[in-house]
Amino acid sequence: MDEKKENKLITSRDKDFAKWYTDIVRVARLADYSSVKGCIVIEPNGYAIWEKMQAILDKEFKKLGHVNCQMPLLIPENLLKKETDLVEGFAPEVAWVTKGGEKNLEENLCIRPTSETLFCDYYKTHIKSHRDLPKLYNQWCNVLRWEKETRPFLRSREFLWQEGHTIHKTEEEAKQETDKMMEVYHWFHNEVLAIPSIRGRKTEKEKFAGAEYTLTNEALMYNGVALQSGTSHYFGQKFSKAYDVKFTNKDNKDEYAYQTSWGTTTRMIGALIMVHSDDYGLVLPPRIAPKQVAIIPIGNGEEVDNKTKEIEDALIKAEISTYIDNSDKSPGFKFADTEVNGIPLRIEVGKRDLQDKKITIARRDTREKIVVESNCDIASVVEKLLEIMQNDMYNKALKRRDELTFTAHNLDEVEKILSTQPGFIKAMWCGKLSCEEKMKEIRGCKSRCIIEEEHIDGKCVVCGEKAKELVIWGLQY
Amino acid sequence: MDEKKENKLITSRDKDFAKWYTDIVRVARLADYSSVKGCIVIEPNGYAIWEKMQAILDKEFKKLGHVNCQMPLLIPENLLKKETDLVEGFAPEVAWVTKGGEKNLEENLCIRPTSETLFCDYYKTHIKSHRDLPKLYNQWCNVLRWEKETRPFLRSREFLWQEGHTIHKTEEEAKQETDKMMEVYHWFHNEVLAIPSIRGRKTEKEKFAGAEYTLTNEALMYNGVALQSGTSHYFGQKFSKAYDVKFTNKDNKDEYAYQTSWGTTTRMIGALIMVHSDDYGLVLPPRIAPKQVAIIPIGNGEEVDNKTKEIEDALIKAEISTYIDNSDKSPGFKFADTEVNGIPLRIEVGKRDLQDKKITIARRDTREKIVVESNCDIASVVEKLLEIMQNDMYNKALKRRDELTFTAHNLDEVEKILSTQPGFIKAMWCGKLSCEEKMKEIRGCKSRCIIEEEHIDGKCVVCGEKAKELVIWGLQY
Repeated sequence: MDEKKENKLITSRDKDFAKWYTDIVRVARLADYSSVKGCIVIEPNGYAIWEKMQAILDKEFKKLGHVNCQMPLLIPENLLKKETDLVEGFAPEVAWVTKGGEKNLEENLCIRPTSETLFCDYYKTHIKSHRDLPKLYNQWCNVLRWEKETRPFLRSREFLWQEGHTIHKTEEEAKQETDKMMEVYHWFHNEVLAIPSIRGRKTEKEKFAGAEYTLTNEALMYNGVALQSGTSHYFGQKFSKAYDVKFTNKDNKDEYAYQTSWGTTTRMIGALIMVHSDDYGLVLPPRIAPKQVAIIPIGNGEEVDNKTKEIEDALIKAEISTYIDNSDKSPGFKFADTEVNGIPLRIEVGKRDLQDKKITIARRDTREKIVVESNCDIASVVEKLLEIMQNDMYNKALKRRDELTFTAHNLDEVEKILSTQPGFIKAMWCGKLSCEEKMKEIRGCKSRCIIEEEHIDGKCVVCGEKAKELVIWGLQY
Repeated sequence: MDEKKENKLITSRDKDFAKWYTDIVRVARLADYSSVKGCIVIEPNGYAIWEKMQAILDKEFKKLGHVNCQMPLLIPENLLKKETDLVEGFAPEVAWVTKGGEKNLEENLCIRPTSETLFCDYYKTHIKSHRDLPKLYNQWCNVLRWEKETRPFLRSREFLWQEGHTIHKTEEEAKQETDKMMEVYHWFHNEVLAIPSIRGRKTEKEKFAGAEYTLTNEALMYNGVALQSGTSHYFGQKFSKAYDVKFTNKDNKDEYAYQTSWGTTTRMIGALIMVHSDDYGLVLPPRIAPKQVAIIPIGNGEEVDNKTKEIEDALIKAEISTYIDNSDKSPGFKFADTEVNGIPLRIEVGKRDLQDKKITIARRDTREKIVVESNCDIASVVEKLLEIMQNDMYNKALKRRDELTFTAHNLDEVEKILSTQPGFIKAMWCGKLSCEEKMKEIRGCKSRCIIEEEHIDGKCVVCGEKAKELVIWGLQY
């Protein structure tokens, strides 16, 4: 399979974005459909990205004092029902276990769609005094939501995520935690995934069921459709009251504790694809790529072998994830393989090139080829290139996002934008639910988030009355 | 809470082993019961042990070429039923999802008790030629088995594990894989968990449903009861035939592929407790302890602060997991806390001791106190102590196991052993199922494994007829 052939397996991104997306998932072997409708198999290439995401995020969480734990997969029906908003939000989309072994269960158990109820149930018996607070717990696990329409990584019935659940003795501390974790997600998207993203607050309509408020990180995909990318919820005492989680405060009085929760999911793999990849396959920012460099020998012989080995050693010593492709396939096949799989840099070591004291490095993002001296300090050359690539990818994505960020002052302008090229739409809003609902009638345009720090002149984009807040609107996955 | 008080929370191990076990789980805050019968909450202290187990095992798996992936949580009923032995083995103990959202499902889905079926279903569509083989896949996940009697870590309805599922083009390669992974488990138990264990083959009766043979790693707990600690299964072509997993071999002919699977679970946390812990709390071998050293300041002042910080820096630099307990609790409370939580070494830094140029190190396993010069090379002193402790713990456990390993030549001897002090019982066996079943009638004594390399004189311990193999028998968790 040579480069040209491989490309034929991928639909053009500009021609059919949805088909292009599933083509990338398939040819880069990130995930496959399973025999269970709506559930996917995350294949090794996809799972390696998730493992790297986990490693980086987990390290940040722990730096901030969080610890991991594991709650049960199943939630008893009566426990789920204690928090009214939550049950209304999730009940239509949970899977129910009604039979264990050969017997019908006395009480149905739902597979967790999220674990607030279980954490509350645990905290209730383990928190007695203000000295037991805060508890900064997180878990990495699978959750299930019985979605109707599904798409690999973006929306599937089962997905993997982390859910942090913290509990505090003051409102202030809990609010700080909510902010802090949003900061981590924002940093992770911008600095690691090279996905420029916007932070803000969800409207009342769009916030998490049961939260006092929800902070969200919003990213824009190449096609102008928005993707929610990490949320952090402040619960105040809502859950504590529903689940009776009290502590004795410093004045020796009983008080309901203050809670937060925050999460990110395997959806981020979908975002990586939709922001960076191209018609040749997956493109991964160096900081998240499980394998950063592929070394491809061209031709045989001791010289080529020694050089590839020497480069591999130097790069591994510099903690750059590297492999040599010594399979019996043709160089052309190997090149295409690195392209499809999004290996950031490919180092081509050819017999003739070595005679000319040269080696070639190919960048995956620009597909540019760079010729360097064969006896250069390869580790520092590669380190620099990876840094440049990381920054270039971020800037390219930022440019695209800026090009697809529009301002609208009335519904006609919104309609015009969405009918030509969707994107983020900045528009003022009066705060009324009816206006938000009216906006949604235009091709499903939803509020992404309220940006508190920014304002533009004008009245509510829908009703024309006095506007309270600047909202980013858009179509969503 | 001082040392004496804390100990009162733990039942004596020799008085009531079962109660002692649950006391350790509770006071070391490893796990707690949940609102879902038979499912536990793995608390941060317990989960940190699991994370360290995962890190060490995962590194070994990857060194051997394995990659991680993630199969769905749910298995359609008809898929599960394709392999007859497997469904007979597991059907009585699975949980069934019969309702998704508000609708009854057309086909019931079971929560995976193990994932052979899902891997086969995947391999079936992804393996075409011998060039696609081998596939060395593993997953870390949760599984569910609807057990009646449960106990934290040892037997719970939901547990965490890793399940490797590999597929090969030859019988030989698959058998080598089966051996190799048993070797990893054996190494892990002996070298990392300091649990001396025995490798062998399960009898036909005790092997995994659907396997051609099962290799097992068996450990003996302090009370003489055996615990299966890692199994590795050779499937031959059984699953490949049931699920139609074929490949084109080098002669261009269709052939069924050869498979293996192998797994270890959070049960290993239970084994760690039951082999090493004592009446003062958890005892962890240094190589698996998430926190290896606790530094306890005694008294205040700059000198103490500087010294504790200096020690912490030196140990962290040497990659020894260390923390200073600067909480406002008393030194006595802090000492008890390190004991209960099984921190291998505790370094006590006191104002007066520093004036005498001394610091004290307490070993958790022997509770011995060692006084060293305050200006010694603390990192190398600690490194050596941790190594000695690791070896001593292994040897102590080995001594206990050897003391509790008996030989029996007839059923009277078996009965006599089990009625005084259970343990591993070595006895010859003719190979007949009826004899194995008769053995079980004696207080539930089961075959643990067949040791192929070893023989003792004598006939079958049950029927007295010609014996084929040496079997290790015992009571089990």
